[in-house]
Amino acid sequence: MSKSSSEVRSIGIDVGGTKILGVALGPTGSIVDAVRLPTPQVSDRDLGRDVGTSVANAIAQVITTLADRVGLDPKSCALGLGVPGMVAFDGTLVFAPNLHGAIGANIAKLVAKRLGRRDVAIDNDANCAAMAEHHFGVARGADHALLLTLGTGIGGAAIVNGVLLRGSNGFAGEFGHLMVDPRGPNCPCGSRGCLERFASGAGLRHLAETAFTSGALAGDVAASPETLLIAATNGDQGALAVVDRFCWWLARGIANLVACFDPSIVVLGGGVIEGHHLIMGPTASYLSGELEGGALRTPPLLVPTALGKDAGAVGAALLGERAQP
Amino acid sequence: MSKSSSEVRSIGIDVGGTKILGVALGPTGSIVDAVRLPTPQVSDRDLGRDVGTSVANAIAQVITTLADRVGLDPKSCALGLGVPGMVAFDGTLVFAPNLHGAIGANIAKLVAKRLGRRDVAIDNDANCAAMAEHHFGVARGADHALLLTLGTGIGGAAIVNGVLLRGSNGFAGEFGHLMVDPRGPNCPCGSRGCLERFASGAGLRHLAETAFTSGALAGDVAASPETLLIAATNGDQGALAVVDRFCWWLARGIANLVACFDPSIVVLGGGVIEGHHLIMGPTASYLSGELEGGALRTPPLLVPTALGKDAGAVGAALLGERAQP
Repeated sequence: MSKSSSEVRSIGIDVGGTKILGVALGPTGSIVDAVRLPTPQVSDRDLGRDVGTSVANAIAQVITTLADRVGLDPKSCALGLGVPGMVAFDGTLVFAPNLHGAIGANIAKLVAKRLGRRDVAIDNDANCAAMAEHHFGVARGADHALLLTLGTGIGGAAIVNGVLLRGSNGFAGEFGHLMVDPRGPNCPCGSRGCLERFASGAGLRHLAETAFTSGALAGDVAASPETLLIAATNGDQGALAVVDRFCWWLARGIANLVACFDPSIVVLGGGVIEGHHLIMGPTASYLSGELEGGALRTPPLLVPTALGKDAGAVGAALLGERAQP
Repeated sequence: MSKSSSEVRSIGIDVGGTKILGVALGPTGSIVDAVRLPTPQVSDRDLGRDVGTSVANAIAQVITTLADRVGLDPKSCALGLGVPGMVAFDGTLVFAPNLHGAIGANIAKLVAKRLGRRDVAIDNDANCAAMAEHHFGVARGADHALLLTLGTGIGGAAIVNGVLLRGSNGFAGEFGHLMVDPRGPNCPCGSRGCLERFASGAGLRHLAETAFTSGALAGDVAASPETLLIAATNGDQGALAVVDRFCWWLARGIANLVACFDPSIVVLGGGVIEGHHLIMGPTASYLSGELEGGALRTPPLLVPTALGKDAGAVGAALLGERAQP
């Protein structure tokens, strides 16, 4: 499966909580090759530098494998990383609930050192996904777009005036941590009632557990977000009520973001959304009712991601291209 | 008090719920003259076009009076309007709880017609204030800044990548209508538990009434935001507890905005803030505790407005200058 380097323009890496995905982009931006490795899992006892080192080793292995296969030089090719957390401009991982042990590590520098490079472009994974959707996907040409990735938590990113918003420290777009209920469940971020306690995979789990506790949902249906969504698809009334509540929370969170950014399009991705047609319609319907000045304005389009699970890695490759001298 | 036109560069108008302020900017951006008129008050029975007409007449009167005094031609001078509400790019007032009867009116066109001009630049009043603070005030040079004006409600605006964020319809920065409590009080916007139900003048009134109802506050202290702030300044423990709760809500609202925008500075203005040193310190303290990744990041500066009550009119004048051919 060797490709000549003339066909490949860049490599992008998406570091997830469970796996590392590397992609090589061809001349038109399509994925010409991909490599996956599990993300090193380290127990909470081994906090600190070593986790960052293990993760950096795995990332470097994905890159060298992929570069070798497509005929690129990992020392000099366009290369970017997307990581699940708040990344400072110098590359330090400042907050990352799904890569907790690597907090404080400079993943970009660790990877660059392993490859013999001066540096590697790095950003938050949702920021990368938004760049990809804006460049190749459903947000192409939009001056004002938002992206929410609904996985275990919520990844977020904003395109404003046609450009990815990074903010003064690189921490913009942390939409999962808007507090929406002061009496809500505790959040790993240290606050409580954050949007991702209601409108993510973990949020769906929480809403299902609440319904189970109140007797409105059977135990086997409430067991996981997956069992709940299957039951809702099959018409289970209790499950449908939970999904309806989930859609209201998601719409309410998006309404808060629309009040801030006034986007023309909101792109939804992540495991909870993909293939679940139960969610888009009711969420759009609740959203138009929740917007300030609702009757006199056009709500933004709610659209599922075009690039799906590849968006983060494709965007990381774009990030790498833009950072090339 | 006549000024020669060579001294005056533009006229800016700030339309408030109770008064219309017009200012003339001199060559260095200082205010060389000002005119005030009461905003026409119309009862709810007279909804529709007539209110917009009355308001436009009063605005045109302020402009012609001021232009005459400073020797500018109102037909051609740089001229901008700031209005309290959501303004579409075509100049239509889409939502304005403090200028309710004028909703649907195109204030800019009505004023332009009265002055014999082709058009008049117009934007939301908080957007104008943010432009003024960014150009002349405490946010000078900031790439990422937010402004919140705490009056009866909350006016909001964002500077991103050094430019005012208007969004896809002109409705960005509506920070008062982020929902922060699904069980909170109803809001005139049609939703409930919006930030401005807690962290504005109306919010302070609500928190005081709640404390009075629970017996934690005396009736004369709870009578108004002003009596409450005076009592707190004098060390009244019940009043101080209400102000403390207010500061928490304000900090929590700002933390939500920091999660979105990651600004380096947040400018606070409006009647509730001006001169009330009870609020800035505790709010900054709560804010640093509420931020995601709190210990590993620097919180944004919280700073009172430099231009105070003139910020909206000064920013409207800047808007007018930028719109000149």
